[in-house]
Amino acid sequence: MCTCLLTTAIVIQQILKTVNLKKDVKHCWPAAVAWEPGKPLVIEQVEVAPPQAMEVRLKILFTSLCHTDVYFWEAKGQTPLFPRIFGHEAGGIVESVGEGVTDLKPGDHVLPVFTGECKECRHCKSEESNMCDLLRINTDRGVMLNDGKSRFSIKGQPIYHFVGTSTFSEYTVVHVGCVAKINPAASLDKVCVLSCGISTGLGATLNVAKPKKGSTVAIFGLGAVGLAAAEGARIAGASRIIGVDLNPKRFDEAKKFGVTEFVNPKDYDKPVQEVIAEMTDGGVDRSVECTGNINAMISAFECVHDGWGVAVLVGVPNKDDAFKTHPMNLLNERTLKGTFFGNYKPRSDLPSVVEKYMNKELEVEKFITHEVPFSEINKAFEYMLQGDGLRCVIRMDA
Amino acid sequence: MCTCLLTTAIVIQQILKTVNLKKDVKHCWPAAVAWEPGKPLVIEQVEVAPPQAMEVRLKILFTSLCHTDVYFWEAKGQTPLFPRIFGHEAGGIVESVGEGVTDLKPGDHVLPVFTGECKECRHCKSEESNMCDLLRINTDRGVMLNDGKSRFSIKGQPIYHFVGTSTFSEYTVVHVGCVAKINPAASLDKVCVLSCGISTGLGATLNVAKPKKGSTVAIFGLGAVGLAAAEGARIAGASRIIGVDLNPKRFDEAKKFGVTEFVNPKDYDKPVQEVIAEMTDGGVDRSVECTGNINAMISAFECVHDGWGVAVLVGVPNKDDAFKTHPMNLLNERTLKGTFFGNYKPRSDLPSVVEKYMNKELEVEKFITHEVPFSEINKAFEYMLQGDGLRCVIRMDA
Ligand SMILES: [Zn+2]
Ligand SMILES: [Zn+2]
Ligand SMILES: [Zn+2]
Ligand SMILES: [Zn+2]
Repeated sequence: MCTCLLTTAIVIQQILKTVNLKKDVKHCWPAAVAWEPGKPLVIEQVEVAPPQAMEVRLKILFTSLCHTDVYFWEAKGQTPLFPRIFGHEAGGIVESVGEGVTDLKPGDHVLPVFTGECKECRHCKSEESNMCDLLRINTDRGVMLNDGKSRFSIKGQPIYHFVGTSTFSEYTVVHVGCVAKINPAASLDKVCVLSCGISTGLGATLNVAKPKKGSTVAIFGLGAVGLAAAEGARIAGASRIIGVDLNPKRFDEAKKFGVTEFVNPKDYDKPVQEVIAEMTDGGVDRSVECTGNINAMISAFECVHDGWGVAVLVGVPNKDDAFKTHPMNLLNERTLKGTFFGNYKPRSDLPSVVEKYMNKELEVEKFITHEVPFSEINKAFEYMLQGDGLRCVIRMDA
Repeated sequence: MCTCLLTTAIVIQQILKTVNLKKDVKHCWPAAVAWEPGKPLVIEQVEVAPPQAMEVRLKILFTSLCHTDVYFWEAKGQTPLFPRIFGHEAGGIVESVGEGVTDLKPGDHVLPVFTGECKECRHCKSEESNMCDLLRINTDRGVMLNDGKSRFSIKGQPIYHFVGTSTFSEYTVVHVGCVAKINPAASLDKVCVLSCGISTGLGATLNVAKPKKGSTVAIFGLGAVGLAAAEGARIAGASRIIGVDLNPKRFDEAKKFGVTEFVNPKDYDKPVQEVIAEMTDGGVDRSVECTGNINAMISAFECVHDGWGVAVLVGVPNKDDAFKTHPMNLLNERTLKGTFFGNYKPRSDLPSVVEKYMNKELEVEKFITHEVPFSEINKAFEYMLQGDGLRCVIRMDA
């Protein structure tokens, strides 16, 4: 812990030296640019403009790769927007702040987030929602809200932003509403993974499914998000955590996250919801669906017990999917809920997730299976495409 | 109030006189027997056997007619079971108790309920469920659980029970788990309607949708159950209550129950969920579906606001219906829940609904639009078939 704090102090020292950048001088820093869909990223010197009103410029120290980066980099399902700087799971330090920013100052440790919290809209003012009207994720937009322009350029050519974060860059500009200020004692090389997937799965269980101590929980999909949902069930004290996945290789790893039983739908000639109902005398108390596959969604709903079962949908489905079930499944007092970013409000709630790590409730290290220097960022893409590991942390200073 | 208490005292006096029935003597009392589907009920002298273990024999003072009675009397959708004594909304007094009954004694004022609470099963022990494994509604069973036989007979011919209550009879035998003991100061001719539909609608709003003060609520279907749901929204302090019904005649009556706006889907050439979203800047905070029509169910779900909207399904759908929606509607943090009997546990919770009437929070009188003597019970069926009024109370002593 002492070492971490010392390292942190040294890093801040270094940052603050670089902070005194002249606003009118153009500064270039290395960033991994995706020039074309599916082609390896290229590290380029990119000009990063100063933050405008309600924006902050961050020095990214660690970033990790999430499926969403790969999905939009492949550009198979949406209008392509290139050249672009991807990346949205990261930890960094505030380098400078734009006009009107009062919550953050240079040197603050932060996690940038792909969605935001303006604190002004109906959603932000509602206790029940985190889907900010102003800053809700927008995967089509490649520019900043303030002027509709990008802060990234190479010799005048704009490079587009991605979900308002673009953390595959040594410096990035982010709306202040998309920045969570966290405990500076937290190791950024660990908590950087809390920016997106891990918090999404964890919050789906802890904030939405809310299993009671001793209850049974089924988790559909044992990737990073699903395992984070399992970790949530473990933290909540679930007595049985049933992992459902088509890939039996995932079970060994899943045990570390508290999964006690494993169901591979391929092993049965009946619907997995029936298998789970038989295992649990009528159904699990809670289920969390993390695959986005429509049939898994339906199974996740139908496998919860009548009377009290709650199914939570996390995975994002295809455009044309229809969720279909017999309404009696609902009338028998089952609940179906969706969640977005684990129902965490980025600025208000993410610091408490970091605290869960600090007090050793949440074991973040288990999610980090690889680490590469920034110069080898394309390796992180290879690991993910091969289904190898959970999270690869990319060190920006290396 | 004094008059009521006096009346009650006199009635108990009368009851207790009759209580001293010899157990080995066969007793006959008038009951309205449905001999055939859809044919007028016939008042017959019916022998009502004494209560067996865990059963109580009740003297019914007031009963009211609910759609479910009519549905099963018409026997259009299920295997017919006749001759049968219908009726499940009622208020009465305990006449005698069977072996093992310790919670109730002769003279107690009670509401019989079509579903039950054994207090022993997983559901009864769960805080979240009221779907008792032992006594959950069973519309196919026409006999008592203890011996699989009916307590009703005419010259040895058994007459079947209906949902364990059969309140269209001066005396009836009910499982103790299906009997809620209530405040004896409550007028049974009013609170009898709390046995089923009114509590179902009220509880759907108060226990499941749980609108906050000042919120917007849409109610689909403005029959007795829907109006009870509206009454719940009024009690909860909703600022806008939007009633949706295909029958514009229902709006005037609905105003008495707090409905502030009315939408007739027939008046628009777009889906009613879009109409409601436009009226409410994105959707209502809560919706309650009381028709059982599958399209209304889908509309009720899709008309709630993203981020925090909760839709509650009350109406019972057809067997072959499929609930179908795009899963993004769920992922945008909408919640879909079903409810059964308003999530009230009959014995534990129904007394508190009666108290809501006693302290004038809940206005039960508004639901009672007709009253007939027992001898004219078929008139109650006519009113309901004509869609005339909400509840018709049948006075057994008249
Ligand atoms: Zn906002
Ligand atoms: Zn992500
Ligand atoms: Zn029970
Ligand atoms: Zn009823």
